[in-house]
Amino acid sequence: MLPNYSKTASVTVKSLMQTNRPVEVVGCHSPLSAKLAEAAGFPAVWLSSLELSSVSGLPDANFLSMAENLEMIRRICLSVSVPVIADCDSGYGNEVNVYRMVQLYEQAGVSAISIEDNVFPKKCSFYEGGSDELVSVEEHARKVKAACKGRKSKDFFIIARTEAFIRNLGLEEALKRAHAYADAGADAIFVHSKKKTDEDIVAFTKVWNRDVPLVCSPTTYNQYTSAELLERGYSMIIYANQGLRATVRALQETYAHIKEKGSTKGLDGVIAPLQDVFNVAGVAEMEELISSLQQPT
Amino acid sequence: MLPNYSKTASVTVKSLMQTNRPVEVVGCHSPLSAKLAEAAGFPAVWLSSLELSSVSGLPDANFLSMAENLEMIRRICLSVSVPVIADCDSGYGNEVNVYRMVQLYEQAGVSAISIEDNVFPKKCSFYEGGSDELVSVEEHARKVKAACKGRKSKDFFIIARTEAFIRNLGLEEALKRAHAYADAGADAIFVHSKKKTDEDIVAFTKVWNRDVPLVCSPTTYNQYTSAELLERGYSMIIYANQGLRATVRALQETYAHIKEKGSTKGLDGVIAPLQDVFNVAGVAEMEELISSLQQPT
Amino acid sequence: MLPNYSKTASVTVKSLMQTNRPVEVVGCHSPLSAKLAEAAGFPAVWLSSLELSSVSGLPDANFLSMAENLEMIRRICLSVSVPVIADCDSGYGNEVNVYRMVQLYEQAGVSAISIEDNVFPKKCSFYEGGSDELVSVEEHARKVKAACKGRKSKDFFIIARTEAFIRNLGLEEALKRAHAYADAGADAIFVHSKKKTDEDIVAFTKVWNRDVPLVCSPTTYNQYTSAELLERGYSMIIYANQGLRATVRALQETYAHIKEKGSTKGLDGVIAPLQDVFNVAGVAEMEELISSLQQPT
Amino acid sequence: MLPNYSKTASVTVKSLMQTNRPVEVVGCHSPLSAKLAEAAGFPAVWLSSLELSSVSGLPDANFLSMAENLEMIRRICLSVSVPVIADCDSGYGNEVNVYRMVQLYEQAGVSAISIEDNVFPKKCSFYEGGSDELVSVEEHARKVKAACKGRKSKDFFIIARTEAFIRNLGLEEALKRAHAYADAGADAIFVHSKKKTDEDIVAFTKVWNRDVPLVCSPTTYNQYTSAELLERGYSMIIYANQGLRATVRALQETYAHIKEKGSTKGLDGVIAPLQDVFNVAGVAEMEELISSLQQPT
Repeated sequence: MLPNYSKTASVTVKSLMQTNRPVEVVGCHSPLSAKLAEAAGFPAVWLSSLELSSVSGLPDANFLSMAENLEMIRRICLSVSVPVIADCDSGYGNEVNVYRMVQLYEQAGVSAISIEDNVFPKKCSFYEGGSDELVSVEEHARKVKAACKGRKSKDFFIIARTEAFIRNLGLEEALKRAHAYADAGADAIFVHSKKKTDEDIVAFTKVWNRDVPLVCSPTTYNQYTSAELLERGYSMIIYANQGLRATVRALQETYAHIKEKGSTKGLDGVIAPLQDVFNVAGVAEMEELISSLQQPT
Repeated sequence: MLPNYSKTASVTVKSLMQTNRPVEVVGCHSPLSAKLAEAAGFPAVWLSSLELSSVSGLPDANFLSMAENLEMIRRICLSVSVPVIADCDSGYGNEVNVYRMVQLYEQAGVSAISIEDNVFPKKCSFYEGGSDELVSVEEHARKVKAACKGRKSKDFFIIARTEAFIRNLGLEEALKRAHAYADAGADAIFVHSKKKTDEDIVAFTKVWNRDVPLVCSPTTYNQYTSAELLERGYSMIIYANQGLRATVRALQETYAHIKEKGSTKGLDGVIAPLQDVFNVAGVAEMEELISSLQQPT
Repeated sequence: MLPNYSKTASVTVKSLMQTNRPVEVVGCHSPLSAKLAEAAGFPAVWLSSLELSSVSGLPDANFLSMAENLEMIRRICLSVSVPVIADCDSGYGNEVNVYRMVQLYEQAGVSAISIEDNVFPKKCSFYEGGSDELVSVEEHARKVKAACKGRKSKDFFIIARTEAFIRNLGLEEALKRAHAYADAGADAIFVHSKKKTDEDIVAFTKVWNRDVPLVCSPTTYNQYTSAELLERGYSMIIYANQGLRATVRALQETYAHIKEKGSTKGLDGVIAPLQDVFNVAGVAEMEELISSLQQPT
Repeated sequence: MLPNYSKTASVTVKSLMQTNRPVEVVGCHSPLSAKLAEAAGFPAVWLSSLELSSVSGLPDANFLSMAENLEMIRRICLSVSVPVIADCDSGYGNEVNVYRMVQLYEQAGVSAISIEDNVFPKKCSFYEGGSDELVSVEEHARKVKAACKGRKSKDFFIIARTEAFIRNLGLEEALKRAHAYADAGADAIFVHSKKKTDEDIVAFTKVWNRDVPLVCSPTTYNQYTSAELLERGYSMIIYANQGLRATVRALQETYAHIKEKGSTKGLDGVIAPLQDVFNVAGVAEMEELISSLQQPT
């Protein structure tokens, strides 16, 4: 099989959402991690802001600009066949920036985006402190509307995320916002919570009466399975940062081992063989291309 | 402590090489991995081409151009205080490209480079097949000379790497090349080998009679410790790809776990806590900056 | 009219080549220059390596890597509706690099590429000195073949350029190469010449007996019109560097004026009004978008 | 003379400001334009947001993110020996973003920045409409303070710009803001005005009683020379967009000529010869490098 350096997802997030199974999505931060997520069988990948900024050694606070994230996202879109969902924070500015962002992301091969009602520059939902302020419901609805106007294909999937529970603004505020974003055209509502139980997300689904599907990310309440979260009314489940955290731990341990032993002896069974690295990088496909080009026409 | 987003290494590779201890260096591919290597106590980091291309999902065959690697290398230089050694393959073109590369890399904060006598575009030393051709000794010596002419500080450290053993060209060829590169001004010679023992590297040091220090990378012959390799005459020991391979394994296992369980339950003790991610990203320093700016002048 | 930040050409270079009129193409080096070329009525734009490297303050000698040029080319593709032809020099490496380049360029919205049989790194065809060496005909044919294999749409148009006349290798060599490239699948042959008359290009068409169309660039022999060059058998005429040279002269004069007068007085009739800048940047379309988003849904 | 691909300005903006002559600065948008400005004798260059966004075919409304502008600014710093002043709009976010921006810009070789009290995303000062809102004086002072804290050298020069006159907020507001920014540590105050006379800028200097120097940009009131503006109390005079406007006109005329004539005949005396392009790109220096590397050591 010849290599494919400009992959296009054959399936859209929109079509995945039309099945009756939970759409399980994992966080990624590089072509390598996205290819491994695809190999593991995930139907889509989540390009988490927290992962992208952390891998750059920066807090998740809008230090990386749209263009920097797009550059990485583009490389990821070119390396996998599963659809890519981009975490776009609050949209990198106002509604005009969102409009252009959507056009650029769609052109880059992204299948879905998520935009949240945080202020810009944002602070990560999991950081302590910070104000409980969100942008006005009108402002965020305008961004959702801009996203809808900017897309070229109706299949480009727009997820509106509310941080109302994260900022302790309560169910009523979360619901008001969700309705406004759905009215503005959102294809799904992402109800973010950092409770240790399903309290917030269950409270929400009890009163959500619209046909617009729901998304959640069980970082702090990971005692429930995808199937259980689907039962509670959530169609897409995002496992947002575990790949990154596994990477951190693996690097900590590997570097500590080498430092302590003054050698890599003993790591061979623990770390992947070089052949796994070659496989994920597509060395065999490249070799096949070289052969095929050396044959006479 | 306020954050520092444009770090400069306080120590150079050149000065590290003037001690009597083995300079142990680990491979990195992102600011995150470099910061963790620094935290683990390594005195310098190696920005491996194999790691940089693999993390981009590409074979190690000069798909990533100088500018793309420089972009990542620059971000890494800005995130750590230890000196950075850049693996520059064959120098991305001819001697004129090497001259400009050195100026750009030095300006970016790189402390040392390694250039090898592979043809361009190269094939990774660990791949099967491929020709045994290297560029002529004169051509690579010209690149080393260009690197010396291009640098602004004499402390910018130039490592000339020969692939003579990798290409099965024998000790005599390796030695001829090493002498020519040292004559052209190289600060150190990197004797690359993929034997399973120290056969090549020991053969070399037995006949190397110059004051120019030696570098090796024990990927295939990892039964020797840094101290043992120092005894054999190697001052710098590069552990080139274990961090990447640990990352691959960690991601494979984590993604498989989530896929199998439909949940991240059970991962908490295995992967790093979010707080570790926040620490490496410098969240606390950012918070301190915010506080300090809110105080009246 | 709402702004369109991810334009796609509605016409391909391939379809333009199927008319009976000369396809006149002008050199560009930025979204601004491309938009002005489109506004002037040109049916396609040529992203000249000479222009792109010169605007970066660098000689035309493969200092800018593929990724840097692609970044600029992508921005240009996103800003115009006419098809974009990318000057790709010798393809930034070997045939494998060409294969990947084609996939990335096609994905970025490029409609046609030109690859030439220069060595890598190249020297600009208009520079003095340098060797008369080209890569072997087999090697360049392999690149053409790789380009054909790499493209996803048959409409992606591949121009094979020979520097045989530039390097004084004569008609026979030029012809041998053109045939080999056409056999390998090239959609058109670019016969480059720096003679002051049509001597080379006429000699070539007298013996070219294939259905593969021809391209020329009358930089040194600009006494002939597009219509006259079409009569001589050339379907596409590239005006490769005049926009850049006009820019250089305009900047020289404007800066000299300001320096001499200590003021911009007297420039107002000479330079474009700010309104022209706003028009080419699409300010009115942005204003319309802002209004449309402020209206109630 | 060998080429220098990583130039460093030998003079700082700070030192230029300590003379008694007006510091005349011209707008640039590429290494090419910066090199031509340097050749024309300007002591510093202004990297105008209006120019940078227009050359990218975009309105001057913070579409280009910090990283995109920094990428171009870095290339410009690497190509000239005169100090570079970067127009940073409102600082691409909040005070934390400003802090990091300063560290990155200083590391890239920028000598001075200007940050303005516009909201983010901004609208160009010369556009019609838009609100008259600025950020609070406290918020912008906090950004100035962050810039001072972020810089590593006291010679890094921080210009605080107020849009108070542009937004019709009157002299009192302009003055209040200028004092707060100077208190926060600004090295100079940029008093922006789009009046057709010197009314605003003269009103300001009549009441400005501090030792902090003043900057102006006579786009709309260009009847005064630099010397006359210095007499009015302005030490730095920025000619912000004339180079770009000259470029637009030159491209319009050149493209129209080619389109009309079907040839470039008649342009030769009007546009710069190719040799001028080669000179600004440093072809001769590159040739000298090639020769010097071919000589035996």
